Amino acid sequence: MLGMFCVRVCSGLVGFRTATCVRTLHSLSGITVAQIDEEVAKLLELKARLGGDDGKHQFVLKTAKGTRDYNPKQMAIREKVFNTIISCFKRHGAETIDTPVFELKETLTGKYGEDSKLIYDLKDQGGELLSLRYDLTVPFARYLAMNKITNIKRYHIAKVYRRDNPAMTRGRYREFYQCDFDIAGQYDAMIPDAECLKIVHEILSELDLGDFRIKVNDRRILDGMFAVCGVPDDKFRTICSTVDKLDKMPWEDVKKEMVNEKGLSEEAADQIGEYVSMQGGMDLAERLLQDHKMSQSKQACAGLSDIKLLFSFLQLFQVTDKVVFDLSLARGLDYYTGIIYEAVLTQAGVAAVSNEAQNGANAEESVSVGSVAGGGRYDGLVGMFDPKGRKVPCVGVSIGIERIFSIMEQKAEASAEKVRTTEVQVMVASAQKNLLEERLRLVTELWNAGIKAEVMYKKNPKLLSQLQHCEESGIPLVAILGEQELKDGVVKLRVVATREEIDIARTDLTSEIRRRTSEA
Amino acid sequence: MLGMFCVRVCSGLVGFRTATCVRTLHSLSGITVAQIDEEVAKLLELKARLGGDDGKHQFVLKTAKGTRDYNPKQMAIREKVFNTIISCFKRHGAETIDTPVFELKETLTGKYGEDSKLIYDLKDQGGELLSLRYDLTVPFARYLAMNKITNIKRYHIAKVYRRDNPAMTRGRYREFYQCDFDIAGQYDAMIPDAECLKIVHEILSELDLGDFRIKVNDRRILDGMFAVCGVPDDKFRTICSTVDKLDKMPWEDVKKEMVNEKGLSEEAADQIGEYVSMQGGMDLAERLLQDHKMSQSKQACAGLSDIKLLFSFLQLFQVTDKVVFDLSLARGLDYYTGIIYEAVLTQAGVAAVSNEAQNGANAEESVSVGSVAGGGRYDGLVGMFDPKGRKVPCVGVSIGIERIFSIMEQKAEASAEKVRTTEVQVMVASAQKNLLEERLRLVTELWNAGIKAEVMYKKNPKLLSQLQHCEESGIPLVAILGEQELKDGVVKLRVVATREEIDIARTDLTSEIRRRTSEA
Repeated sequence: MLGMFCVRVCSGLVGFRTATCVRTLHSLSGITVAQIDEEVAKLLELKARLGGDDGKHQFVLKTAKGTRDYNPKQMAIREKVFNTIISCFKRHGAETIDTPVFELKETLTGKYGEDSKLIYDLKDQGGELLSLRYDLTVPFARYLAMNKITNIKRYHIAKVYRRDNPAMTRGRYREFYQCDFDIAGQYDAMIPDAECLKIVHEILSELDLGDFRIKVNDRRILDGMFAVCGVPDDKFRTICSTVDKLDKMPWEDVKKEMVNEKGLSEEAADQIGEYVSMQGGMDLAERLLQDHKMSQSKQACAGLSDIKLLFSFLQLFQVTDKVVFDLSLARGLDYYTGIIYEAVLTQAGVAAVSNEAQNGANAEESVSVGSVAGGGRYDGLVGMFDPKGRKVPCVGVSIGIERIFSIMEQKAEASAEKVRTTEVQVMVASAQKNLLEERLRLVTELWNAGIKAEVMYKKNPKLLSQLQHCEESGIPLVAILGEQELKDGVVKLRVVATREEIDIARTDLTSEIRRRTSEA
Repeated sequence: MLGMFCVRVCSGLVGFRTATCVRTLHSLSGITVAQIDEEVAKLLELKARLGGDDGKHQFVLKTAKGTRDYNPKQMAIREKVFNTIISCFKRHGAETIDTPVFELKETLTGKYGEDSKLIYDLKDQGGELLSLRYDLTVPFARYLAMNKITNIKRYHIAKVYRRDNPAMTRGRYREFYQCDFDIAGQYDAMIPDAECLKIVHEILSELDLGDFRIKVNDRRILDGMFAVCGVPDDKFRTICSTVDKLDKMPWEDVKKEMVNEKGLSEEAADQIGEYVSMQGGMDLAERLLQDHKMSQSKQACAGLSDIKLLFSFLQLFQVTDKVVFDLSLARGLDYYTGIIYEAVLTQAGVAAVSNEAQNGANAEESVSVGSVAGGGRYDGLVGMFDPKGRKVPCVGVSIGIERIFSIMEQKAEASAEKVRTTEVQVMVASAQKNLLEERLRLVTELWNAGIKAEVMYKKNPKLLSQLQHCEESGIPLVAILGEQELKDGVVKLRVVATREEIDIARTDLTSEIRRRTSEA
């Protein structure tokens, strides 16, 4: 099967001349992986000597491309958003799991179609071939298969990695959080699927991001549609990814791509064009079940019946106001097998975020609407990992948390209210000198009583600077110690906002602080 | 400077024969990085064709070496531990930040001494050279320098990566959490340092892991000690890392390494041996300040005075019971400049964890005690990143959370109490058939009222299986619907533990559930 192959590498460097090596290997079986590794190492060493990327490399104080630090204010917002989302997941009875940030490379292979090129690989440092996780769904499926779990309802919030073209002002990063909720198990049709949509509805409502819509469709309806429109079987996936561009490109351009690039007949493209312009609810599903073309496809009919059933559950869940059956929805990932969905923000406020594109952003980017959640059913993925191919049906949703962070950060910027980054209830201060020991003694009492308290790390700080710190960081109370207070066994408690000051018996201090900050 | 170099790669494979290439490059300047990249890519492709590691590679369903998944039970424990730790950090007024999982490779270069070989590099896929973070301290320093922050009190909980020899039963992984608390800023001596120890004391006490001790020492005392014992300046670091092995090796072996491997005189080694056997409190610092040898070193005296001051603050913080000044403590990291400390568990329960080593664990591993926190002062690190070398003094502590997880998991295993992995308050069930819609309607009411509720994803589940699910997952209540209940406008509320059942008016249901599960 394998033919001729030869490798010769001779490397010598003045300074320290590495042993010259000349090797001639006449067949593939004659060279070992260890030998290749050695040659690669030599070449890379040479590259390093050349100064990295052709000598242009210099030390720069920055984070890697497409990544960012979160400062304390951003973290405070992130924590709030996570709490809302996690509360919702917990309200629906989800457990949580965690998986490593990297997987064996082969675990990710063949799961992401064309996007596989965006996977970050780790350097082979003489061990396993590893890649950073691209999403949380494939590791979840690997986890289920590895542990032979056949049903679970779990959420997983963690960072994933894609070597994509970053657009950071629009919340698109190379390192970003995913918040996934998935239900695995053999259940009656559309009940877990409907719960996923209920969850999206709850989260987007509670986060108060403005109006939104949840588009739903079904892989089987798409495939059935392609079949009845005359798309050859082997072109389903590629035509599907072209349809997926409809939220960024006008139909005319999508059609052009189908016909000119993908070789579809104009007639077939036009028929697809007719279908993908359709939007509606349960009624549309009913109408399409009667459609003389669509009804020829068993697959499409199965999908349409499920859409009907889904809508009946969504009515019981009281979420039909935001859900629309949209035949143009065609999410890119290979692993979906049934229902698919995507939530988009529809308000002006979001458009502003979307349009605030960076320099050089093209028109295609600036018209994109705010997709903030997406998911679908993937009944085959776990089976790809099971040695015996046993299937575990799954449906799930991923919340597009980075875009939500961006919006929340903008809202916080715009709002007058200051975001607190700590929860400190009281600052232990003194007006006089030489009271460091007394301040440390008091703050210890407070910490030991569970009060969130701070003290300045100075022997003799000025009272003004202690008060200023409180104002800047939103600490509501100051416990002031002086010679007189110590003698009287009291502490002067100052309310920062009103400048009111009262003496409190030292024994009552913690309960008084608790009482005054109970809403915090 | 650079001499001869030649590369020849000819690759041809039957099947698809790639274009044969023969290249002869006569000087280093004649080869470009792009060409090297190309050759490397070809070699690696060949390697992949060979089937990875010498053809032995087969698809295996596993996580990468030294990493693990967390299942829901482990996550529940992890969440509890994190809550305790985060509460403590917040009680002390810390903000939090986050940084990317990878940094530019050069950001990490030269920070970890000999351990740099354990850094995971990302594959060069035609962009920046990146490495997974090795700890949270260096990214923190990079963050401070990059954002010109001169004072902050922050915590950061995130995973770090080390290509170390994993010992997973003992909580040593290649991917593991660090929980760091650091105080950056120019403050009066030893106040923030003492607060770090107070925090360690609080966390270890609250987690209830058994008795512990916090060893403290100072880099300046170590260096002063080496100087007065006659260690040459250029051997300080290497002798220091030998001293660091004292918690795993007897003195005789450490001495042997100093003399035989590191070339220290026997006399110097013996003098070091005398000092490193000393343990005590403020009194020991006072005694050493009078020591005729030690007092010759200005550095040592500065360190000893600070140890005295530290202990005076620790007395005010009420934590001296667990803190011991130990001259054998010599943490490995290069960046420490002042006080250093390490907390160890001292109880039998921990020894059991430590000794439950995997097959092939060597003796050195099985005698190691349970280090669960460590840290120190590093006044120079931020300056390494600042273009103008401006220093930001820092002191911090890292909680060894993975070992704590291991202990907590073992405790949970041993305890009779079941760990709940969800917080579901009530299960909506029915005894009769055809009530799916009614169940979905009721669970929607509960979700919308903020109750944590579940419903089985079956059209007609058996009552028994619904009750079994409650028992298994610890759900305390069941809301049972039947024709009669629907007619009467009530719900039958069943207490799982007692099997007691009462009818509750549907309008009162949420408040009744809340009342009965308020302690959950």
